Amino acid sequence: MKPSFNLCFLGFGNVNRTLVRLLADRQAELRDRHGISYRFTGIASRSLGWIADPDGLDQAALCGAGAPARENSRPDLTVNVNTTAQNVRDWLAAAHADVLFEATSLNVQTGQPAVDHIRAALEHGAHAITANKGPIVHAYRELRDFAADRGRRFLFESTVMDGVPIFSLFDQLPAIHLKGFHGILNSTTNVILSEMETGLAFDEALKKAQALGIAETDATHDIDGWDAAVKTAALVAVLMDVPIRLEEIAREGIRGLTPQALRNAKRDGWPFKLVCRAQRVGDGVKASVAPEKVLATSPMAKISGTSSYIYFETDIFPGLAITEENPGLYATAYGMVADFVRAAAR
Amino acid sequence: MKPSFNLCFLGFGNVNRTLVRLLADRQAELRDRHGISYRFTGIASRSLGWIADPDGLDQAALCGAGAPARENSRPDLTVNVNTTAQNVRDWLAAAHADVLFEATSLNVQTGQPAVDHIRAALEHGAHAITANKGPIVHAYRELRDFAADRGRRFLFESTVMDGVPIFSLFDQLPAIHLKGFHGILNSTTNVILSEMETGLAFDEALKKAQALGIAETDATHDIDGWDAAVKTAALVAVLMDVPIRLEEIAREGIRGLTPQALRNAKRDGWPFKLVCRAQRVGDGVKASVAPEKVLATSPMAKISGTSSYIYFETDIFPGLAITEENPGLYATAYGMVADFVRAAAR
Repeated sequence: MKPSFNLCFLGFGNVNRTLVRLLADRQAELRDRHGISYRFTGIASRSLGWIADPDGLDQAALCGAGAPARENSRPDLTVNVNTTAQNVRDWLAAAHADVLFEATSLNVQTGQPAVDHIRAALEHGAHAITANKGPIVHAYRELRDFAADRGRRFLFESTVMDGVPIFSLFDQLPAIHLKGFHGILNSTTNVILSEMETGLAFDEALKKAQALGIAETDATHDIDGWDAAVKTAALVAVLMDVPIRLEEIAREGIRGLTPQALRNAKRDGWPFKLVCRAQRVGDGVKASVAPEKVLATSPMAKISGTSSYIYFETDIFPGLAITEENPGLYATAYGMVADFVRAAAR
Repeated sequence: MKPSFNLCFLGFGNVNRTLVRLLADRQAELRDRHGISYRFTGIASRSLGWIADPDGLDQAALCGAGAPARENSRPDLTVNVNTTAQNVRDWLAAAHADVLFEATSLNVQTGQPAVDHIRAALEHGAHAITANKGPIVHAYRELRDFAADRGRRFLFESTVMDGVPIFSLFDQLPAIHLKGFHGILNSTTNVILSEMETGLAFDEALKKAQALGIAETDATHDIDGWDAAVKTAALVAVLMDVPIRLEEIAREGIRGLTPQALRNAKRDGWPFKLVCRAQRVGDGVKASVAPEKVLATSPMAKISGTSSYIYFETDIFPGLAITEENPGLYATAYGMVADFVRAAAR
């Protein structure tokens, strides 16, 4: 029987809210089948502040409305100082954290403050699990090596294709040579393109995607291809072991596509998709994100709505493709649960 | 640095011949990147007899024509007695085996003698890695539990979809609930159906598949759906944890399909495929292998030649599909290499 793990959650938006519910739901199963037990000892967000209780926060309250009553934590352990980095350290210490689930907002340009959060967690001696792509793009090698030095895990399965085990798949493919990949990795643009093909204007399609809860209020990162580019960079950094800067990825979003062009392309049997690509060239990798016409009968043309797709080209398997159809509500949070089980298995 | 592993190969047909070449090819990489070193100390087959040398057999000879000269092994360590089970034990002992790669022919009805080989390897204290589906269908729980008792691994990634990490993928999906799956898992019938759609008679299509090296001389197991049924049973036993007997799988092969019927179905946009299916029903699983008409635009309709496909339905990912396109020469053997790395990582 492994010891009980103290779990801490930084950021309390959709991902971590869903995560605490899923962890609560699978608690008996993870204990009985994997010998892993846990309690929630820390939660922090802009609106909640820094809440910690090493004896365990009120799980039911956390799983409820999402905003745990502050009186559920011991007031003397609630940390409230100004410097964020110091905050995180004090909070992790107060919560006796064994695992940090990092789910703050993505900063494409710097990866901060998530990079600092993860570094602080590893320094504290906790495993660091993130749904944030920024740290991989901006600090993958440093955080990977630092985690190894500290004997802890830095895991991030939920950053690409929700929680589908893409990174873990390659852990199961030793001594394989990944030559390149292509795929559809951004849901918002995929939904917008489908809607525009049926005749909606760009703004209407975006509003529909927002109404469906797929696109964020500020969907710029999706529409201009940043999200897809960051995912591409993360895959290149981790799976091809080539650090690539975002600026090196040729990036074009979907703003230039008119409903007319989309309808014509679809009618001609070559619909547009926002395609991510990477290919080894010499010691480096050439990567791009751009709208491409794909053959209507090809697998990429079939990826609709929130589904996603990736095709890996390796020396052993010339084509190994993974399709995720209509991910459920728990898909992203699930990737973090699976990461936790991986970390706990050590 | 892990100790060096003594590797033994039982059966020396295509799979193990390719495996020794792949292991020789990746030797430096596995040593440098995974800290795993090894030598070949045993090889046995009907034509070669039982060859063992704990100091290492001649690797170049093994990788060559496929038939290592007997003089490469110490004659005093070459075992030659009558009872096979005793043979295997003596041979494993003489070779100081740490890992057995079992690649003898499939016996659909009993799983023998592979089951005995694997049991002998685990008893001896070696990891047992097989490309043979029989032991999973006939003795999965027994061998799994026996391996766990002995602190060794019983691994079989190469039995379904060549070496694509299907079973390992689910090791990466803790606390997920697999509701069912469907897919195309037999290459021979897939090639034959495609050829018949173009107008070839069944016998001509079979001959073509044999000439391509896809179908065996006796292709009955493929054509009558046995191979697909055994794979289905293996997936059900391991991934759904429901032992299912082959007789419980509704099985229909492709003998009843005429070129005319295949051409008509294809013309109508609903081509025939030999589809494997399994679905949880109560505490059990309902499974079948049968020719089905599939929509021409669906993923299964696109699976041609030696490609294969599987679609998993889980509570977290409503649809998670894996496509293997045109597996390379090394795909099956690679699965055994990956299994070896998994076993060595313990």
